[in-house]
Amino acid sequence: MLGVCYYPEHWPETMWAHDAQRMKELGLTYVRIGEFAWARIEKSEGRFTWEWMDRAIETLGAAGLKVVLGTPTATPPKWLCEKYPDILPVDIHSGLTRGFGSRRHYDFSSETYLVQAERITAAMAERYGSNPHVAGWQTDNELCCHDTTLSASPAARAKFRAWCAARYGNIEALNAAWGNVFWSMEYDSFDQIDLPFFTVCETNPAHRLAYRRFASEQVVRFHDVMIAAIRRHSRPGQWITHNIIPPATTGVDNAALTRQLDFVSYDNYPLGFSDQLMAKAPADEWQPFMRTGHPDLAALNFDSVRGLSNGAWWGMEQQPGPVNWAPHNPRPAPGMVRHWTLQAFAHGAACVAYFRWRQVPFAQEQMHAGLLRPDDVPSPAWAEVEQVAAEMALLGDLSTVPEKAPVALVIDPVSAWVDDIERQGAGYRYPAVVFQYYRALRSLGVDVDLVSAGEAKLDGYRLIVAPCLAMPDEATVNALKASNGMIVFGPRSGAKTQEFSISAGLPPGPLREFVPIKAIAVETLRPDCDEPLSYQGEVHGSGKWRETIEVGECCVLAVYEDGSPAAVRSGRSIYIATLTDDAFLKSLLLNLCAEANIAITPLPDAVRLRRRGDLTFAFNLSGEVVHAPAPQAASFVIGSADIEPYGVAVWR
Amino acid sequence: MLGVCYYPEHWPETMWAHDAQRMKELGLTYVRIGEFAWARIEKSEGRFTWEWMDRAIETLGAAGLKVVLGTPTATPPKWLCEKYPDILPVDIHSGLTRGFGSRRHYDFSSETYLVQAERITAAMAERYGSNPHVAGWQTDNELCCHDTTLSASPAARAKFRAWCAARYGNIEALNAAWGNVFWSMEYDSFDQIDLPFFTVCETNPAHRLAYRRFASEQVVRFHDVMIAAIRRHSRPGQWITHNIIPPATTGVDNAALTRQLDFVSYDNYPLGFSDQLMAKAPADEWQPFMRTGHPDLAALNFDSVRGLSNGAWWGMEQQPGPVNWAPHNPRPAPGMVRHWTLQAFAHGAACVAYFRWRQVPFAQEQMHAGLLRPDDVPSPAWAEVEQVAAEMALLGDLSTVPEKAPVALVIDPVSAWVDDIERQGAGYRYPAVVFQYYRALRSLGVDVDLVSAGEAKLDGYRLIVAPCLAMPDEATVNALKASNGMIVFGPRSGAKTQEFSISAGLPPGPLREFVPIKAIAVETLRPDCDEPLSYQGEVHGSGKWRETIEVGECCVLAVYEDGSPAAVRSGRSIYIATLTDDAFLKSLLLNLCAEANIAITPLPDAVRLRRRGDLTFAFNLSGEVVHAPAPQAASFVIGSADIEPYGVAVWR
Amino acid sequence: MLGVCYYPEHWPETMWAHDAQRMKELGLTYVRIGEFAWARIEKSEGRFTWEWMDRAIETLGAAGLKVVLGTPTATPPKWLCEKYPDILPVDIHSGLTRGFGSRRHYDFSSETYLVQAERITAAMAERYGSNPHVAGWQTDNELCCHDTTLSASPAARAKFRAWCAARYGNIEALNAAWGNVFWSMEYDSFDQIDLPFFTVCETNPAHRLAYRRFASEQVVRFHDVMIAAIRRHSRPGQWITHNIIPPATTGVDNAALTRQLDFVSYDNYPLGFSDQLMAKAPADEWQPFMRTGHPDLAALNFDSVRGLSNGAWWGMEQQPGPVNWAPHNPRPAPGMVRHWTLQAFAHGAACVAYFRWRQVPFAQEQMHAGLLRPDDVPSPAWAEVEQVAAEMALLGDLSTVPEKAPVALVIDPVSAWVDDIERQGAGYRYPAVVFQYYRALRSLGVDVDLVSAGEAKLDGYRLIVAPCLAMPDEATVNALKASNGMIVFGPRSGAKTQEFSISAGLPPGPLREFVPIKAIAVETLRPDCDEPLSYQGEVHGSGKWRETIEVGECCVLAVYEDGSPAAVRSGRSIYIATLTDDAFLKSLLLNLCAEANIAITPLPDAVRLRRRGDLTFAFNLSGEVVHAPAPQAASFVIGSADIEPYGVAVWR
Repeated sequence: MLGVCYYPEHWPETMWAHDAQRMKELGLTYVRIGEFAWARIEKSEGRFTWEWMDRAIETLGAAGLKVVLGTPTATPPKWLCEKYPDILPVDIHSGLTRGFGSRRHYDFSSETYLVQAERITAAMAERYGSNPHVAGWQTDNELCCHDTTLSASPAARAKFRAWCAARYGNIEALNAAWGNVFWSMEYDSFDQIDLPFFTVCETNPAHRLAYRRFASEQVVRFHDVMIAAIRRHSRPGQWITHNIIPPATTGVDNAALTRQLDFVSYDNYPLGFSDQLMAKAPADEWQPFMRTGHPDLAALNFDSVRGLSNGAWWGMEQQPGPVNWAPHNPRPAPGMVRHWTLQAFAHGAACVAYFRWRQVPFAQEQMHAGLLRPDDVPSPAWAEVEQVAAEMALLGDLSTVPEKAPVALVIDPVSAWVDDIERQGAGYRYPAVVFQYYRALRSLGVDVDLVSAGEAKLDGYRLIVAPCLAMPDEATVNALKASNGMIVFGPRSGAKTQEFSISAGLPPGPLREFVPIKAIAVETLRPDCDEPLSYQGEVHGSGKWRETIEVGECCVLAVYEDGSPAAVRSGRSIYIATLTDDAFLKSLLLNLCAEANIAITPLPDAVRLRRRGDLTFAFNLSGEVVHAPAPQAASFVIGSADIEPYGVAVWR
Repeated sequence: MLGVCYYPEHWPETMWAHDAQRMKELGLTYVRIGEFAWARIEKSEGRFTWEWMDRAIETLGAAGLKVVLGTPTATPPKWLCEKYPDILPVDIHSGLTRGFGSRRHYDFSSETYLVQAERITAAMAERYGSNPHVAGWQTDNELCCHDTTLSASPAARAKFRAWCAARYGNIEALNAAWGNVFWSMEYDSFDQIDLPFFTVCETNPAHRLAYRRFASEQVVRFHDVMIAAIRRHSRPGQWITHNIIPPATTGVDNAALTRQLDFVSYDNYPLGFSDQLMAKAPADEWQPFMRTGHPDLAALNFDSVRGLSNGAWWGMEQQPGPVNWAPHNPRPAPGMVRHWTLQAFAHGAACVAYFRWRQVPFAQEQMHAGLLRPDDVPSPAWAEVEQVAAEMALLGDLSTVPEKAPVALVIDPVSAWVDDIERQGAGYRYPAVVFQYYRALRSLGVDVDLVSAGEAKLDGYRLIVAPCLAMPDEATVNALKASNGMIVFGPRSGAKTQEFSISAGLPPGPLREFVPIKAIAVETLRPDCDEPLSYQGEVHGSGKWRETIEVGECCVLAVYEDGSPAAVRSGRSIYIATLTDDAFLKSLLLNLCAEANIAITPLPDAVRLRRRGDLTFAFNLSGEVVHAPAPQAASFVIGSADIEPYGVAVWR
Repeated sequence: MLGVCYYPEHWPETMWAHDAQRMKELGLTYVRIGEFAWARIEKSEGRFTWEWMDRAIETLGAAGLKVVLGTPTATPPKWLCEKYPDILPVDIHSGLTRGFGSRRHYDFSSETYLVQAERITAAMAERYGSNPHVAGWQTDNELCCHDTTLSASPAARAKFRAWCAARYGNIEALNAAWGNVFWSMEYDSFDQIDLPFFTVCETNPAHRLAYRRFASEQVVRFHDVMIAAIRRHSRPGQWITHNIIPPATTGVDNAALTRQLDFVSYDNYPLGFSDQLMAKAPADEWQPFMRTGHPDLAALNFDSVRGLSNGAWWGMEQQPGPVNWAPHNPRPAPGMVRHWTLQAFAHGAACVAYFRWRQVPFAQEQMHAGLLRPDDVPSPAWAEVEQVAAEMALLGDLSTVPEKAPVALVIDPVSAWVDDIERQGAGYRYPAVVFQYYRALRSLGVDVDLVSAGEAKLDGYRLIVAPCLAMPDEATVNALKASNGMIVFGPRSGAKTQEFSISAGLPPGPLREFVPIKAIAVETLRPDCDEPLSYQGEVHGSGKWRETIEVGECCVLAVYEDGSPAAVRSGRSIYIATLTDDAFLKSLLLNLCAEANIAITPLPDAVRLRRRGDLTFAFNLSGEVVHAPAPQAASFVIGSADIEPYGVAVWR
């Protein structure tokens, strides 16, 4: 299904009915509204003005559209900030209060805001919880966006102290757990603990990890209270979702954040994200993808969201044209809006909603395209949406739970935190490591499921790839033990205990029962100073992160320049002790897929494959016609064996 | 005429008479003094010590020199800052108060400082307003330098609220004008409005624009009060000027700032400005101009100041050797001090004053050269000044109003603010866009007038070039309508309404009556990722900013790679929808000049031309002899057809 | 002798005896303990818990080891920070208090902390001042590390005002000395003086210099009080040292800081320091030294510390493997731990202690290698320490005072401050200038002594090289006059008076009695924009800093592109008026060494020489065998004429 994001409060009420009619005619089913409308819903504490929203919902519903109702907690109004100034967060770099005037100006640790946010959420749920046009709810909006997970507020400090007391019981236990004997950092009481900011040099990594865990839990707590408020008042069948930010870079544990949701949504902006990702790539690497996005970036996020969703997920905001927030904002290549939509479905989406109906000519996002131009004329995306709306019937029911892929990529927010906290080598960045493994798999034409480390249900996967499990907990280890596929561990796996010490008996600590090795030393090299690694007679590059390992009963797969082991195997488990060049990863994973009986289809950079149900989707990211890697007997549902520029082919 | 900046308070009184005599002998007419001397004039509030200044003026006057008296408001003394700490500004990035210890430590919104500054200015004017040696006044010094236009002070906040109340009348009007319905940003009263700093993400562009307008007006208000204070006490004939910073980067509207002045002055530091401008240029591009400055940078500023001055302008500070404030500070190539002086006259200066008489061996500017070395020996510039002093007689009366050029380049501080506020593409920077158009025109040997957008008196120009008019107001549109030359609009013109919304009916909004087009989409590309543009069979580069335009009755001049229009013409108006490479601009402007009957002389990089009266000046910025592009019949006033390295030729 | 740093408080007491036994067996003599243990020694004010430390010392002593006792003032415990919050420093960039949670969180200007630090130091000295196992003391730890010399605290401001009053006597004298007449900066009283931070633009360089002197003196005062506290209670024979940071970049005058010590110690981390130093070097320049460190960097620091020590010095912390704090942290090449140890001895060390005994698995430095791995197994460094322990007998008594080298390199903290304060050219950085001269000398195989400018005992040196003496005081000038070697002055020498004005009669001011020249102008060029310099028929590069000089009776050695002098000689003194390329310096210094009868041995990049007593050490920093530049008759004490990769040869 298709949908769109709409802000009735931005437009004269006289336009609503016509807008609704055109949405329906375009083939849209869902309309998301309301998520920034607090100031229009409540004019001062308790003085509600629901009537306009009643009418907006009624108008949309009358046109045969279903409403997704966003709760407005991402933008507390000015009157609320004035009345309760303690809701504001504090910047962790400058120490300055982050004030009103944009969005997300609230502190996840503020009890005051929790009360206020629950109040408005409950009020909204009470009013629309049995509205027949309201199909479901979106909580807040892009939680943690704009670096809002971490705050240096007094509220955060007070809560963190309580959190520490709850976790450690007594201060001696905390001192022991964190190793505070180092540098005379021992505390006498929990009330002495500050947030890990504004110190002379780096604070204890255990202190920072505790704060990161705490901060993530504050977000989850806030979110769970909102979900519960909706559930109390909503009729059966009204589902609840949230449009998360999937990469593990916001500081929140997405698996925990999404656990109480019915399904997960994602806001897909391939061009903006790619411009940021490839900001330092040379022009000749960037330009081919400037108007398509990097071929694997949206896919990674899709797969990540599907993994969190345990079923079909939603694209809640799909870029329909140039956006306004990246350093450079190209227009999509012709066809890419349809392409991205079909790609979402191929990766398991049930619905794709476009952001936004009509480009609004004022305020912060006035340069962000919509399906309609500010002058109410269809933008170039319109025709592509028309096309994809027509094609959807060919694809069958997309609300079904997507099939398991043959390969699981295990992702882990804690590994990202470990990397943020312990920058042992500037060339190691957890998200880039994950992306490198993912790219290698995708370039082999293999479908991949992303599985969150703590949640890991790994049975049934023929290949399990964990680019890093820096601090594997018992649940993760047990899930791996219970699995039956081949396992690949990247370097730094098993590096730390749960309290950020070096693992007992050296890394990989608890993973030693998979691979009997010890990482006896780590070195980190400048990214442009690779050293050799040999694998099957080929020399590859190894750098950024290199572990010296002592090996027990292992098969050595690859060696460093001095002949010492760089990648080893024990039974079904492989440990790669270093970051490498792309070619090595592709070569190794190709061999492992072959062994695991996973069909591979090596692909050029501009072509990607994805299966869903009995359909195979092929995506052409280039401006040239490419030949679809389809079998002779393929029956084409969409397109043909010659895929048009930026086009898509789908076959059975 | 020539002059010099002098600080009698820096030197023993015994040196003054000899200094004055040597100034006269060198051929100088004017001496600027006093602009940082507050602490020496007033020892505590109301305790004045004018006597030394009386003697200094008398000594200079007795030697036949005329005094330009600077008011000392750029440096309030410490006792004043202690007594009135609310005069200090607040940094908009750190939130820290910007304290005493350098200069410009005052807030343009401080009523306290306005009173104090008016008091000292009036006191000075009262004392010297009828002094026969005082020819005129310079207000303050380089207003807005050191990023002082914007302040996050409580004073600024209070004034901004009042300013908003005055502009919008009621808060509903402000909410509507700014589009505050977006993100629940609506206010209930003007007292709720904060300055647009320290928020979570970007604030409303309309909010920021209002603040920028307010901030600019605060500077103008301050300055106008000072001018009025001088006028109240000065005798007829004493003029008032200010040494402005011409590029539209300080945040003040220079046209408004200079409106009450008799003429405008400019401080010319070609090497320092060029080092900053070309900081990222490769060595082979920079080194040829390292000791001359970029050939068009000083010229652009000269033309800008002439445009503001409505008549002959002054070079109030001319670099005579290495300065101390750029990242790198080369010495000028031999001859360049004379070269720059003659260049100023060619571009319409009535007087050039050197900064400074003698290099002072202490404090912040001790490494800044003067005409005399710290040991009182002439610096290398001295002989060049002697030469130019002798040559001036050959040039005739330079106090006359310079002639109109055939081409007007329209500049616009609001377009710079729009660009600062809405960074849609990192490759678009308004000052660089202006400079690119200017360079193209100057490389064709064409003289250019810079005309401020709001002020535009455009009749009589055969070609009017507006690199960007992002938010053209009625006055600007009317001036364009009343003009009769060809008009070139650069991209982003007509983009916004006066309240920072997208123009009605899409850009170029009110400029559509010149070119019947709609910019239906904007894309911004990485500066190293140009895409093709075709013009007259040649392929050029287009990037950074590209608009997709729908065209009505237009002639398409250039097209993008997909054949869609990139530059169009309707009658006498041309709209260029994209930033391009230099070659395209030169090619297009060459054709337009031909059509407009403007004589062009394509020039190599190191040669520039400028006409004044019946004189033509040719400037050689290279270390080689170059041939002057003079007609056969030219009668040389200065130099000859073979222009010496770094030299100048002037002919009739 | 060899030693190690040990933290008994990090390990169960049951491990101590075995640890001590193994230290002894490894050949270690000294064990440093205690320097971060305050929280374990004193649980709240006056409540001491010495017993565990008593036992630790006893255990180590019983094993035949000698203890170096560190005073714990680098890490005041949390209870102390809570009780006396005014001890905390304030960040000079953000204005934020630098809180508890890492280390060095105290203000050198805090009288409160001075009292507390003296109290704990005296208490420790009282307890262990006659302990027979305690051989000596280390004060605090790496004073000034983490940019802690400068603080913007109220305590610093109050002290600075008092310091100014004491230095200048009356405010008029200060105003005159600083040139405060400039920009109306004059004060009426010392109470008006602020710290030179948070201003609109740059403050008076004289103000900043005064603050830098003050700040350095605050550190020295603090340190001297600590030394005195130890001396009051320690038995004769217990020496006192401090592990300083030798480069003149911490803001403290190391000569003053170390004056009261018995000898000086240094913490040697060649890989981390080199990674920082060469962060912008291209990969092909960096990679050869990635696992060895830059060949001259450790040597420079060794020579610097020897110069401060007036006798044999100590390596208090020697890197034994990868560290954790540089952007990239490679492992040392095999053999480098031995190599660095022998290098320290060659450069005059009496003892080298490794940091640290066993890698601790928790807290900030858990990724910092030790001699033992966290699992108590020897790390790769262990065997190298065993080897060097065995070899030490071959080298004889290393506690003797090292011989004078033929060349003195004069270093000067004030020149570093001048450069920090007056950034006339971004390409001039004092430490890089010193390093360039040092590299040139070392590449000629010449031994170099580093002599502090103020302390200069220069008699007996055949060549004295002063890369910069920006502000030479009378003692420095007198020492140079009393010397009898050739003298080389680099550019910027003699630039300033003691109060940061341009030198009387222009630079080089008081150095004019060595070279009769005047630097009449300075230009600074972009580092990639060298201009030519001719020397003995060869063209070299000159840039970054170039002085135009007028010369009296001088021999011109080298000239600029215009034929004007770039390097001159008068008698035994040479003045080089510009920064140059490396080749020029090598060429010039080679000629001067020849003239001064100093034997030179031009060396490839990866080979270095150093003599001590009758031994010559040759160091191979490459992975290839190199031939030792030894005479035919050399008798090898260690190694042979073919030096193994990363190896060392020592001969008589």
